[in-house]
Amino acid sequence: MLKVGVIGYGYWGPNIVRNFNSTESACVAAVCDRNRGALARAVKNCPGVAATTESRDIVTSPDIDIVTVITPVSTHYELARAALLNGKHVFVEKPFTSTAAQAEELIGLAERKRLKIMVDHTFLFTSAVRKMKEIIDDGVLGDLYYYDSTRVNLGLFQHDVNVIWDLSPHDFSIMDYLIGEKPVGVSASGRAHINAKEDIAYIMVYFPNNIIAHFNVNWLSPVKLRTTLIGGEKKMLVWNDMDADEKIKVYDRGVDITTREGLYDLLVSYRSGDMWAPKVDQGEALRIETEYFIDCILNDQRPFNDGEAGLRVVRMLEACDESLRNNCRMVTI
Amino acid sequence: MLKVGVIGYGYWGPNIVRNFNSTESACVAAVCDRNRGALARAVKNCPGVAATTESRDIVTSPDIDIVTVITPVSTHYELARAALLNGKHVFVEKPFTSTAAQAEELIGLAERKRLKIMVDHTFLFTSAVRKMKEIIDDGVLGDLYYYDSTRVNLGLFQHDVNVIWDLSPHDFSIMDYLIGEKPVGVSASGRAHINAKEDIAYIMVYFPNNIIAHFNVNWLSPVKLRTTLIGGEKKMLVWNDMDADEKIKVYDRGVDITTREGLYDLLVSYRSGDMWAPKVDQGEALRIETEYFIDCILNDQRPFNDGEAGLRVVRMLEACDESLRNNCRMVTI
Amino acid sequence: MLKVGVIGYGYWGPNIVRNFNSTESACVAAVCDRNRGALARAVKNCPGVAATTESRDIVTSPDIDIVTVITPVSTHYELARAALLNGKHVFVEKPFTSTAAQAEELIGLAERKRLKIMVDHTFLFTSAVRKMKEIIDDGVLGDLYYYDSTRVNLGLFQHDVNVIWDLSPHDFSIMDYLIGEKPVGVSASGRAHINAKEDIAYIMVYFPNNIIAHFNVNWLSPVKLRTTLIGGEKKMLVWNDMDADEKIKVYDRGVDITTREGLYDLLVSYRSGDMWAPKVDQGEALRIETEYFIDCILNDQRPFNDGEAGLRVVRMLEACDESLRNNCRMVTI
Amino acid sequence: MLKVGVIGYGYWGPNIVRNFNSTESACVAAVCDRNRGALARAVKNCPGVAATTESRDIVTSPDIDIVTVITPVSTHYELARAALLNGKHVFVEKPFTSTAAQAEELIGLAERKRLKIMVDHTFLFTSAVRKMKEIIDDGVLGDLYYYDSTRVNLGLFQHDVNVIWDLSPHDFSIMDYLIGEKPVGVSASGRAHINAKEDIAYIMVYFPNNIIAHFNVNWLSPVKLRTTLIGGEKKMLVWNDMDADEKIKVYDRGVDITTREGLYDLLVSYRSGDMWAPKVDQGEALRIETEYFIDCILNDQRPFNDGEAGLRVVRMLEACDESLRNNCRMVTI
Repeated sequence: MLKVGVIGYGYWGPNIVRNFNSTESACVAAVCDRNRGALARAVKNCPGVAATTESRDIVTSPDIDIVTVITPVSTHYELARAALLNGKHVFVEKPFTSTAAQAEELIGLAERKRLKIMVDHTFLFTSAVRKMKEIIDDGVLGDLYYYDSTRVNLGLFQHDVNVIWDLSPHDFSIMDYLIGEKPVGVSASGRAHINAKEDIAYIMVYFPNNIIAHFNVNWLSPVKLRTTLIGGEKKMLVWNDMDADEKIKVYDRGVDITTREGLYDLLVSYRSGDMWAPKVDQGEALRIETEYFIDCILNDQRPFNDGEAGLRVVRMLEACDESLRNNCRMVTI
Repeated sequence: MLKVGVIGYGYWGPNIVRNFNSTESACVAAVCDRNRGALARAVKNCPGVAATTESRDIVTSPDIDIVTVITPVSTHYELARAALLNGKHVFVEKPFTSTAAQAEELIGLAERKRLKIMVDHTFLFTSAVRKMKEIIDDGVLGDLYYYDSTRVNLGLFQHDVNVIWDLSPHDFSIMDYLIGEKPVGVSASGRAHINAKEDIAYIMVYFPNNIIAHFNVNWLSPVKLRTTLIGGEKKMLVWNDMDADEKIKVYDRGVDITTREGLYDLLVSYRSGDMWAPKVDQGEALRIETEYFIDCILNDQRPFNDGEAGLRVVRMLEACDESLRNNCRMVTI
Repeated sequence: MLKVGVIGYGYWGPNIVRNFNSTESACVAAVCDRNRGALARAVKNCPGVAATTESRDIVTSPDIDIVTVITPVSTHYELARAALLNGKHVFVEKPFTSTAAQAEELIGLAERKRLKIMVDHTFLFTSAVRKMKEIIDDGVLGDLYYYDSTRVNLGLFQHDVNVIWDLSPHDFSIMDYLIGEKPVGVSASGRAHINAKEDIAYIMVYFPNNIIAHFNVNWLSPVKLRTTLIGGEKKMLVWNDMDADEKIKVYDRGVDITTREGLYDLLVSYRSGDMWAPKVDQGEALRIETEYFIDCILNDQRPFNDGEAGLRVVRMLEACDESLRNNCRMVTI
Repeated sequence: MLKVGVIGYGYWGPNIVRNFNSTESACVAAVCDRNRGALARAVKNCPGVAATTESRDIVTSPDIDIVTVITPVSTHYELARAALLNGKHVFVEKPFTSTAAQAEELIGLAERKRLKIMVDHTFLFTSAVRKMKEIIDDGVLGDLYYYDSTRVNLGLFQHDVNVIWDLSPHDFSIMDYLIGEKPVGVSASGRAHINAKEDIAYIMVYFPNNIIAHFNVNWLSPVKLRTTLIGGEKKMLVWNDMDADEKIKVYDRGVDITTREGLYDLLVSYRSGDMWAPKVDQGEALRIETEYFIDCILNDQRPFNDGEAGLRVVRMLEACDESLRNNCRMVTI
């Protein structure tokens, strides 16, 4: 039985505890939070768990095999590093770290110590994202043209990061997973209206094969939108995560191009056919993710959402910040 | 009775003819199109109208008071210039011209000849846009934070312009009308997948008072979206032009900021209240616009959607093209 | 060339004229309306057409082959009868007649005179209804369980009929076409709030094979709904006629029933699979219907929406009225 | 501290336990279920609670003040009667009892023993229903014309009751609460396709002042719909419980009737104005309901959702069954 120590028992921590406890081969042995009220809630929900306000108690405990770091991003590096140095596997909330350099150091450290890092890109374990992965990998959409995500709602304001670091790690990790290509550059624009951090931002990501990605992230929207359009040569897909019943719709629509013999004209014709909404299971993504992490540890396999996956996202976040400071100029990656 | 000569009888021309004919003080006297099939349709729909394949017949006719230019943008300047030189008022399809220099020359020419120019920014005459103008001018939204438009659908591919010149003149003219401020710069990114013209583009517009605007224009979307979010300090608005019944929704939602006395902390709290959907009349916008143009001529008044309004839009389109060629770098206006 | 005489140039008449004129082998020769303003509009839209306020001029004219009766239902019988007696084919607005006895007489008369009757159940010529017919006849839904239609909106109040005679002929004719079975009985409830005619009504139709149909018709609804659910043993279908893009959705959902061996228990399990929205063409239904009527006359074929189809609908409307007067008691047909 | 004994720990029982435990002045002391697996889950979720498979242990326990009966309806009468005879207050799942006679006996027993009965019509404690009550009582809608509810989805099949007894108690209790009038009669039609119990039914309820109510309940729908239209003389309301954000919309739409002086004609004109969606709080209804029950007991007040409210619903359910057996004939109440 693998023992889990959870650092951070705020909004997401209780879900982490509940899901690790629901796995067969792991259980939560200790919870750490600086806030004593949060600790009291942890003990009430999970009688018998050790509680501490000192993260050192978790990372140095000989009884703990896995440390989960569910704290603000600015603390990820220190906590994960301490855990790895003490021989613990680490499960880190997204985004992985504040800088790419930190991420690289943690990856190297884990390799030397033969430990696992998993970055909590939970969306990759939803049925919707897995179904889209399957659709794209099966070639249903053909060559991809674009990936366009809108992720807007009112708040929640973060104090330590801007809207890009808060909302777009979801989009970066999903895009990275679905497209599976290395982008060449990033542009980003944004504005801060409420405090010094951008609360609205627009991100463009450029790929070598002419794919363009775009994320619209906004903490000041009156309505909650979670819509992604993916256009391909053969078909096009809409993922509306707010639709309880028909999250993914695949449209047999597009443009056919032919060249008339002996002529230079392109003939463009429109194609419109049936729409198909595959069944998407409900199931809790975090439950699947925690099971998968335990399996990776027990079978000594590298998770696909490992430190490298986390690093790729952090590199794009850093590039966004650089582009923000340079009037939306494209920053190469 | 003012006599109208219509140049261009393609997709939009029949609507122009029908609406000028429905005004009290004007009627269509002549139609010009190089395509003889189009001309035959014009005569069938409007028996008695003069028909010609030569635009010169229209612009030089002594019987014509107003020339409407409903042709591809690359021809606007020549046709409008010839009409003005021959003493005709001109009604020009959007975008006004291919370059700002052309627009400036036409404006100067019209002023010298004491003629009217109206640029056909039809959306400004819809009940939805007029209602939003009223809401914003009444201060209902408070200071504006952002203007964010999504205008995507499948096709129609234009041969002579990219998606920015095709779709975003709507957004630029509406934004110009509603916000009433002069932007300081524009960024744009896009990609061409089908032919050499961009079929997808993202545009950011920056204003001095921290307002940011954003347009998502796309010819390759499987679904048709026409949604604009406008965020303000006091309230926020969603305009969904695809919703037959509730086009405009005003949300009493936002963020309140207070500073605790003696502290530097910002306290951010969320506000969520009622939503209100004002009645929006149906009525054909082009009918109102053509009536208004006739009134402006008869009463010697300058239309608000005059050559200057057209020029402001063309300047932003030119800046978009420059930013497109420079990796999304902001171009000052 | 078949000559059409149109009686009634109110709301629907102009569509009838336009569509008969667009057929290859027919044209509208004369229009009749008691309202001189309506007649003037007819002549303006259709120069050269004969205009009269006397229906006798139409039904007795030796130049006319087809009479279309687009007048209030109370006048259908007299006008259609006069037309048939004068040797004209008739195209009659729905509902066919005020009583089943009238319908039977007209059917007999047409047979003796070897003339065609078509009842204008326009919906049967929409792509949506034709697609559903195809889906049901192909056995996609399996045995049918129910047919449930909601057809509600604000107004338009009719002076001569209640909401059942106004709105439910659509539902009765579509149900009759799709299900193709003879119902055994009808129940109906309703209330009149504004004047003496019911403005809200609920109709149940019973079939021998356990299918139940239900229509919710309402002139006092704040929202316009046009939704039909059709449940079958294998799959289920939703037709939302207000959805511009995805009018028909076929759900692979249902209930599977098994009996455990040696036990009397029914085991009920739920099935939930993909959804599929077949492409539904746009095209004007009335255009297809008028072409079809001309073809039926030229080829001496009986239209499927003939007098008998009209009679079946009138019988159900009469049964509804009887049930209304008897506290919703089922009336056998 | 009031001690609660919970009988029945199936689907709804855990919510009952959690919510009584969250009140200040009550806690759950014992849980009873015949299923040992369910009992084990109860103890796991609520360590320290007494667990039993015998309801007698609950109803006779001297430590228990309140018995909650969360079992199939056929057992409600026996369990509630035993609890009342032993001096316990009772909280009974809806519908209250299988027959009106049982309900009347329980009401009389509770009165003699000075005990409280609450019937769990949870919807009456949702913010949406409370907001509608406020709107109607404030006269916003004017005199009511109709109440029309659609409550359909796939399953869940009940073994002991038909779809009317399963789904329509929600509608009957909400209608009873909002309209506050005594109906004069009920009609109902339905069909059973899967087993011997009706899985689809349509219910009409008649009121003396010309209000008509209608419920569409269906276990065989491919889509889940929870929509209620309420029409009034002044305004109309739509309650869509599936809309996360805008559950209630009030439309300034309707029909105005005037009589021309000296004439018998009714002039009907349509009114269409703004729409308004009041803020509806989230909050768990059952939490509010359990708090309210405790308050009623502590302050010796009769709950508005008492045995009488439960009886009114059971009377209408009985009348539905009688109408079902009599071909939809209206049954007076």
